[in-house]
Amino acid sequence: MTTDERATIPPERMLPVLNAEEKVLERIERARRRKARVREELITLAHGAGGRATRTLVEAVFLEAFRNPMLEPLGDGAVAGELAFTTDCYVVTPLFFPGGDIGDLAVNGTVNDLAMCGARPAYLSAGFILEEGFPIDDLRRIVASMAAAARAAGVAVVTGDTKVVQKGKADGCYVTTAGVGTVDPELRLGASAARPGDAVLVSGPIGDHGVTVLLARGGFDIEADLTSDTAPLHGLTARLLDTCPGRVRCLRDATRGGVATVLNEIAEASEVAVVIDEDAVPVRPAVRGTCELLGIDPLYSACEGRMVAVVDRDAADAALAALRSHPLGTGSTVIGRVADDPPGLVLLRTSFGGTRIVDVLVGDPLPRIC
Amino acid sequence: MTTDERATIPPERMLPVLNAEEKVLERIERARRRKARVREELITLAHGAGGRATRTLVEAVFLEAFRNPMLEPLGDGAVAGELAFTTDCYVVTPLFFPGGDIGDLAVNGTVNDLAMCGARPAYLSAGFILEEGFPIDDLRRIVASMAAAARAAGVAVVTGDTKVVQKGKADGCYVTTAGVGTVDPELRLGASAARPGDAVLVSGPIGDHGVTVLLARGGFDIEADLTSDTAPLHGLTARLLDTCPGRVRCLRDATRGGVATVLNEIAEASEVAVVIDEDAVPVRPAVRGTCELLGIDPLYSACEGRMVAVVDRDAADAALAALRSHPLGTGSTVIGRVADDPPGLVLLRTSFGGTRIVDVLVGDPLPRIC
Repeated sequence: MTTDERATIPPERMLPVLNAEEKVLERIERARRRKARVREELITLAHGAGGRATRTLVEAVFLEAFRNPMLEPLGDGAVAGELAFTTDCYVVTPLFFPGGDIGDLAVNGTVNDLAMCGARPAYLSAGFILEEGFPIDDLRRIVASMAAAARAAGVAVVTGDTKVVQKGKADGCYVTTAGVGTVDPELRLGASAARPGDAVLVSGPIGDHGVTVLLARGGFDIEADLTSDTAPLHGLTARLLDTCPGRVRCLRDATRGGVATVLNEIAEASEVAVVIDEDAVPVRPAVRGTCELLGIDPLYSACEGRMVAVVDRDAADAALAALRSHPLGTGSTVIGRVADDPPGLVLLRTSFGGTRIVDVLVGDPLPRIC
Repeated sequence: MTTDERATIPPERMLPVLNAEEKVLERIERARRRKARVREELITLAHGAGGRATRTLVEAVFLEAFRNPMLEPLGDGAVAGELAFTTDCYVVTPLFFPGGDIGDLAVNGTVNDLAMCGARPAYLSAGFILEEGFPIDDLRRIVASMAAAARAAGVAVVTGDTKVVQKGKADGCYVTTAGVGTVDPELRLGASAARPGDAVLVSGPIGDHGVTVLLARGGFDIEADLTSDTAPLHGLTARLLDTCPGRVRCLRDATRGGVATVLNEIAEASEVAVVIDEDAVPVRPAVRGTCELLGIDPLYSACEGRMVAVVDRDAADAALAALRSHPLGTGSTVIGRVADDPPGLVLLRTSFGGTRIVDVLVGDPLPRIC
């Protein structure tokens, strides 16, 4: 279907068509042949960790039932014509942590999912599931933080819902935000768009959010001066897209499962290898030290204000300069490149000159991080 | 701000402006003067019941923080230009009940919120908060039911999210759906649009859903052949709006808090009286009987496939005929009218010839009904 054909379908601009490119259709066909299967009978924490189990659950249960070309790419949001639409549930514990809380996390997270579609965020919804007995002052604090984050991101919370469940049927407060934004319908961003030779960038030090939340739970005898990196990234993505029109292949914020999970999704969807240099991956010393003590790989620790960008190799320098010129991208760096082989794998060239596979996250080392 | 001015603000059709009519601005001003205050320190089940406590919480906490003209009317959804946007959380217990489950309830509920804005529903998002240990077969059943409801309503579930919390931190499965749809930007529907003389209609027997769910929880020694009325109402609203262009003032689906709550919101927002005839309100004998045994007023029992429509008195006959011609509106009836006085109150003319005030719901007689 060409753009012109799409443009004739009413109502013309918002709902032109289910946006099916040939490559997507091919992938649908392949996915149908190679069906994901959930082997477990019961939901485990791993099903919510963003890694292999989440992926299998999403493909075997949700995609199988809802299958449509907008859902199929399983991106951060869905795009139809000029409309981008996304949702995220937030169950982070504790609700308040250094650098943020469940409120600004929920707003920034949804803003970022829209930004990763290349969209300009416009409106948010907010659904609250509250546990009986939850302090109303805590709710006020969360809502104030959401309102401040929305103002900072230039979006409005325009609709919402509140439900209350009995004591013991939730954990204080869960928030689900959805967001709509406007997007250039000619943009072709997606995990399946990476090509051999492309450069892989991150927009700053990784893993801060995950480690911060983990430490905020207490129980570790670790002193680290860390704050969550939660931030709205649509300004950063807009600057990148404006600077390198047509040269950006894919944008993903590295939340649950971290940078490793994002890179694996790109490698798998694009049927390419992603090769990264361990020494090039920016990790704050406090994050690295804490991860070593806790036995966590920073590559799997969530960020909430960092993204991975895959760009045409010829645009890498311009992209890096564009990202670094933005306050939220000063720590941007090229961490690797896309290669032909082996397709579907992420390889890490270690500081010692070796190469190891960076696999998809299995299990859930960091539950309820967002 | 006139329609012409609005039309010049880009991107032209989706995000024309925060849709502020003068009447809304007046109400904002009044609301600022007469601030709602939450007196409780802790969240109670009543804050989620849809009645007085919910209203106060929403006004004092959410509206106060997020205040903008799209949110301000506190309708079933928000409208900006041709875009309608809404969200709802579902925490119903049990998850499966006669006539439906949390899955089709969530899809139909969001479809209906869009329909009540006069919109044509297009895309839904689905966020799942799952409790560790939840049976995956139950999840499959819920998702299949959502997919079937989406197909029946002609909408696509295009984006979603799944989070898992530890055992004891949820109650199996909570679902939050959001929806976007397209709406005629000239439509002026809203709880504040009722005028003295208008006719008040309901689209069929009321209270089925609430009573069905209550009985499905067991513990009552009552045998009643009842099923939830959960259904998508956008076809019904479209027929009504097509038949009576410019004559429909307000559409509301009578969910939490039932018809009584909807009528109170209309009376308050429009500063009118709503006078209904007890004998005219359609209630199935099984619902009436069960309500009598349980001490519940059917006027406060939730429906999930019934709506209240306020229409110009001259269009009442045409509206009634239009509703009755639709499969989901065969039981439609005129239950009362809008009057001048006393403003803000709902009056019931009883079968015995008396008149009583139908007050806003206080407390929560039916927690977690949706």
